[in-house]
Parts: sequence; C-alpha cells; structure tokens
Amino acid sequence: MAQEQIHRHNVGTLLRHVHLGGSMSRAELAERMGLNRSTIMALTAELSAAGLVREEPPTGSFGSAGRPSLVVRVRPNWAYVLAFDVAVDRLVAARVGLGGAVLDRREAVRARAGADLDHVVEVLARFGRQLHEAAPADSVCVGIGASYCGMIRPGDGMVRFGPDMGWVDQAFGAELSRRLGLGIPVPVGNEAHLGALAEQHRGAGVGLQNLLYLHGDVGVGGGIIVGGKLLDGDGGYGCELGHMVVNPYNGRPCGCGSHGCLEAEVGERALLDAAGRPAETWGRDALRAVVDDADRGDETAREALRRIGDWLGIGVANLINLFNPGMVIFGGMLRDVYPGAAPQVRHRIATNVLPVARERVRLRTSALGDDSTLVGAAELGFADLMADPLATLAGTKASA
Amino acid sequence: MAQEQIHRHNVGTLLRHVHLGGSMSRAELAERMGLNRSTIMALTAELSAAGLVREEPPTGSFGSAGRPSLVVRVRPNWAYVLAFDVAVDRLVAARVGLGGAVLDRREAVRARAGADLDHVVEVLARFGRQLHEAAPADSVCVGIGASYCGMIRPGDGMVRFGPDMGWVDQAFGAELSRRLGLGIPVPVGNEAHLGALAEQHRGAGVGLQNLLYLHGDVGVGGGIIVGGKLLDGDGGYGCELGHMVVNPYNGRPCGCGSHGCLEAEVGERALLDAAGRPAETWGRDALRAVVDDADRGDETAREALRRIGDWLGIGVANLINLFNPGMVIFGGMLRDVYPGAAPQVRHRIATNVLPVARERVRLRTSALGDDSTLVGAAELGFADLMADPLATLAGTKASA
Repeated sequence: MAQEQIHRHNVGTLLRHVHLGGSMSRAELAERMGLNRSTIMALTAELSAAGLVREEPPTGSFGSAGRPSLVVRVRPNWAYVLAFDVAVDRLVAARVGLGGAVLDRREAVRARAGADLDHVVEVLARFGRQLHEAAPADSVCVGIGASYCGMIRPGDGMVRFGPDMGWVDQAFGAELSRRLGLGIPVPVGNEAHLGALAEQHRGAGVGLQNLLYLHGDVGVGGGIIVGGKLLDGDGGYGCELGHMVVNPYNGRPCGCGSHGCLEAEVGERALLDAAGRPAETWGRDALRAVVDDADRGDETAREALRRIGDWLGIGVANLINLFNPGMVIFGGMLRDVYPGAAPQVRHRIATNVLPVARERVRLRTSALGDDSTLVGAAELGFADLMADPLATLAGTKASA
Repeated sequence: MAQEQIHRHNVGTLLRHVHLGGSMSRAELAERMGLNRSTIMALTAELSAAGLVREEPPTGSFGSAGRPSLVVRVRPNWAYVLAFDVAVDRLVAARVGLGGAVLDRREAVRARAGADLDHVVEVLARFGRQLHEAAPADSVCVGIGASYCGMIRPGDGMVRFGPDMGWVDQAFGAELSRRLGLGIPVPVGNEAHLGALAEQHRGAGVGLQNLLYLHGDVGVGGGIIVGGKLLDGDGGYGCELGHMVVNPYNGRPCGCGSHGCLEAEVGERALLDAAGRPAETWGRDALRAVVDDADRGDETAREALRRIGDWLGIGVANLINLFNPGMVIFGGMLRDVYPGAAPQVRHRIATNVLPVARERVRLRTSALGDDSTLVGAAELGFADLMADPLATLAGTKASA
C-alpha cells in the first residue's frame, strides 16, 4: 500500500469517527485509530482547513477548573447530502448534514400501484431542488443517496426488480441525477440493506459486527451485516431473506411466483387475511388496527399475530443458525407486528437454534423507526466524502 | 497504519501469492500486489534469505532464446505444517509443505460412536510425532492446524459440540498440542468451514469472493464465504445451514432436538431410509450402494435420490436467495449424492430463487474430494506464517 493512499484513508477514517460518533477528543481519536497524537493533530488540521470539522471546548465544560481540552466535531449545517427514500407508501427527500442531522425534509404519500419511473422521479427531483435552494448560501452538497424498495444493481442505481411498482430494469439513479441537474451521481441502495447499515451506524446495532435487519412492508426485505460489512453477494443481490421458503407444503402464493416464502407467510396480506380482514384493506393503518385489536383482547387478532409469529420464528431461527448474529432487528411494519409475535419467535429460536449459536443474540425493534431507510440513503451519499474527504470536496467545488 | 506493519503485511502477502498460486514472476507479483518491481525485489530477497522462497528459471524454459526471467517459488520440503482431520469415519494426519503439497500422511478408520477425547488425541498425537520424526533433518514445522466435525470455539480449539461423538466442551486443540509436545499451539476449525476455505484457495472456487460449500457426512455442515472471507458470526458459530428448517410439518427428527432440519431431510439416514435400507446400515459404502443402484436403474433408489434432491433444492435455493453466491459446492458425501439429485436441485433453484440472484451461480462438486477438510486444516496451520513470515520463523527456531 502506498504512503499517499494510507494518508487519505486516515483522513477519511477520522472524519467518519466524528461523523458517526459525535464530538471526540484528540486523545480518544488517537486511541480508536491506533495512531499517535501528533498524527491526529495533523489530520484534524487538514479537515479543519477544509471546513469539515472544528476544534471546540466540549459542551458542558463551563466552570470546570483549568482549560478543558478541545474536542473535534463536524462543522454543522455546511457540508450536506440529499437523501431520497422510495418506500411502498411514501416518497421522502431530506437534506442531511455532516454528522447525520436531518436539516430539512419533504414528504408525499404514494399511491400503492401505478407509479411509473417518470412520476416518482419528477416528485423526488422537485423536492430535491427545493431542498437545495433552501440550503444556506455558503453550504455545499457533497453527495446524494437514494433508497428504493426493490433489487438494485450496484454501481449505476438500476432498479432490476421493483415488485410493488412492477418496475423491471428502470434506470432510476441515472434519471434522478439527470432531473436534479446538480451534476452529482445518485447511488441507489435496497431499502432493507440501507436500513441495516443505518441501524448499525446510528441505531439499535451501533458497534455490532454481525446483525440481521428484517424490514417489513408489503413483503419482507433483509439487510445482513457480516463481519462489519453488508452482505452483498456476487452481484449485489444477496440478503433476500423474504424469499426463504419456510412453508414448502400448502404455502401461500408469493409475488415472486413461488409458494411459502417468508414474506408470503408473514407479510402484510398474510396478517390481514389471518385476522379475517376484507381483501380490499391494506396498508400500515390496517396492520396497526389488527395489532390494536389484539392488544384489546380480540382473540382472532391475537391468533393472527401468533400465526405470523410462528412463521417469522422459523425464518429468524434459520437465519440465526446461519449467521450467528449479535442482534436481530425488526424494522418497517415488523416493528408493529413483532411485540405480539415475540413469544412464538422466541419459542422457535429456543427450539430450532443450536445452543451455542443463540447464546448472545438479542432481539430488538428498529431504533430509527421509519427513517432507517432514509438515514441509510444519507450515509450512501456521504460515502465518497468518507473515503476521500479532500478530493471529494475539491470535486464538488469544481462542479459547482 | 504504521510503516513497519505495512512492510510485514507485504512480505506475508507475497508469500501467500506463491504459496497458493505457485511459481510467479516478479512482474506478475508486482501487478497482483500493486507495488513496483524494486519493492517486490526487496521483499523477495527477504523471503529468500529466510529460506522460504527461491528464484529459479521457470520450468520448461529449456532452449528458449536468451536468458529466461526468473520466477519466485516456494522452497519445497523445508517449511511445513502438521494437519489433522477428525472426520466422522476416519482420523487423518499429514505433513503438508509450504506450497500445499501433502508430503506424508497417516490415516486410521474411526468407529462411529464412542470415541472419547483421550482416544482421538492419542491416535492423532502418535501420527503427528511419526510425521515429525520422518521429516528431513533440516526442515522446520511452522504451524499446526486441525479440522473437527463439530462446533469449535475460535481462539482455543475448544469443541463446543461434537454431535456424532457426543462431545460437549472438550479441550481438543489444547490437549492435542500438549500430547504432541512440539510447543506449538493447535488451532482447530469446523470441517465444513475449513472445506470451504480449501475449495476457495485450492479447489473448485479459486478466485471467488462469494461461495457456499455444503459438506455432507452423517449430517450436513456448511462453510460460507462472503466477500472473500469465511462467515463466522458473533461467536464463530455461523454457517449452520444443516439446521435450517426446511420441513416444518412432519419433518424428520434431527440430532439437534428439532424436526425438519435440512440435515435431517438430506443426511445419510434420510437417504438410506428413503431407499428402504435396513436401520443397521450406515456409512459411505452404504450411501454409494444407493447411488450405484440408482445408476443401474433401481426405481426405489432413484426415487430416494429425487426425494433427497427436492429437500436439498429447497435448502440451496434459500441459501442462494440469501447469499447471491458465485458458486455452490457439494462436498463430503454430497459429492456422491448430488449428481442423482441435481435435477430436483436445479428445479427448486429455477422456481424459488429470484432471477437476478441466480443469473451467475454455478453448481459444482468439491474439487479436493475427501481432502478438502485436511487441506483447510493445513492452511489454518500456515496462517501465522502468512501473516508475518519472518517473525513466525524466528519464533519457530527459538522454540526448537
């Protein structure tokens, strides 16, 4: 590895530490990065000169004896990304500052079917331009990221398969970039992949190297962190835990054409059917109504959650055997469903998972709630800056 | 990262290239490692001075015009490891040279039940000492590695669970090291994990970053390579694909206490039962007899393979959806079973796997055959040498 490469890596790593971890003393940075303090001082000076970080007294240091040692923190409200989220029921755009704060946002309810590429991109690009124009005059957009509820080709943001919109091979990332007109490419990630990364960086799973994130909406997507990194597989299409067949006999038909997939047995329609709701009901409100009824003692609703919980438990137990994760996180609509289904899930884990593989696993609901995918999209937008802060910033200024 | 660390890393990386890849010119090494030729020359000189590599004319260079450029290759029959394999039906020990050649080996048939720690270690330690004594006088043992058919705690070679021997929390690695008396620790790995690494380094999956290895014996173990590395999970107990429940209703009882696990539906007993063989038959020969009968047209044996193939297909399809691997490798007894079960496996993949996730997957049987686990154990023994060749060698000489 060449000297210059290492230097760039270290600059980026320091920025990532304060971006994700908040303000930090130089001593703490030296320890975390395994570098000496003079190197940390030089790296901090470079990032400070570039306008990305500041050295300041720690908050709450009033009145302490002597001069408090300075902490390094990101400069707020200057460098930012635009983050977009195409979810099954809404379109969201946000301006997210270095450090992760959502500074501004726009949101629209999305009709479930019939949204073509043109419509989705038009709404998001309008939101994006509004957010960009409303940003402070001296602030700088350092990247863009988008989350999409479907299978995405890495590299060019092509939607290979968007089941609920019926999209096949739609150039979503390229088209959104073109309509935004900012001269910045738009990387796109699968919503559950990004949700998993968001929970690992800023949510329930901070610091964990191995975690499973299950994202429920109409179906069930997955994001799986293995050894600190998102499992992407050979083409970027891994983590499709929703299409694990858990019920090979008499399984419910799945949107993928198969039967008995996890998402067919625990997705929105499965729960509503099990609770005896009419075929024309759908959406988060309908799901929550089942959960509320169960909480109020309605036996049909309770039985529906137990039934979903049993299939969910089989799936989660299989995944724990495979991944030996430190944590399983339930996100999206599974946040609402999980509490009523937890006894069955725990029972299946106790029955089906080898003892040594479940010794330390914890079960949690998403800490970032419905914003996990948006937060993940923002981190996608920050990726270039974290990899090489100074070159990315220089490129941004050149294109502005 | 400090300068000295990078240097050690580079020395080890060069050694690993010639250890795994065979002889290589300096120019090729420069290209693979992204370093300039003078750095490669210096690194090669260090390894050569330490006795690990030599620079020689390429084989088959006779009669070519001009002086052929030298290639770097490992020095054969000098630095070696001892590799051990505790499989369900045999105990193996081998002396494996730098470069991967098996230089000498000892093997014993193992009775299936009732083998306690003391017996297994006694046989292996005797083999190990014989191999060590038979090694050339000036050769040097640089490490030891062992493969075991059970769940292993990383770090200390503790067998947490060895289902077919009934072992629970047995200090196998420590005890084998003590009885060998060479003053060298014995790291231990799960057989399917090591088989996967062996196939990736020297077998069917060379160069692949994402692969699945299914190892059949009495049960079914798994080794899963994600992003170039073995999936280990939080405690080192991941990859337990044999305990994925594929048949939640009417599933066959599994050794783990659950029902309908993949290994219960496709393991040795499942096949023999499906083929109508008496309960007292067991072992590789009995399995091969079913396969041979099927090949000769016996309809009961054919139906048994189809049935096993369908469950195997459900399991493999689930795994492809999760891991989007470049290759699936069938090892152990599944090498014999897979060909007769392949139509069902391919049918399930076509039916259950999302199209984009199966675009590029290839299905193969193990290229290393029954030695995949032994080869993996040898690589475990070489790990320290590859991480830091000169320090490891110095430590070995000091302890000799």
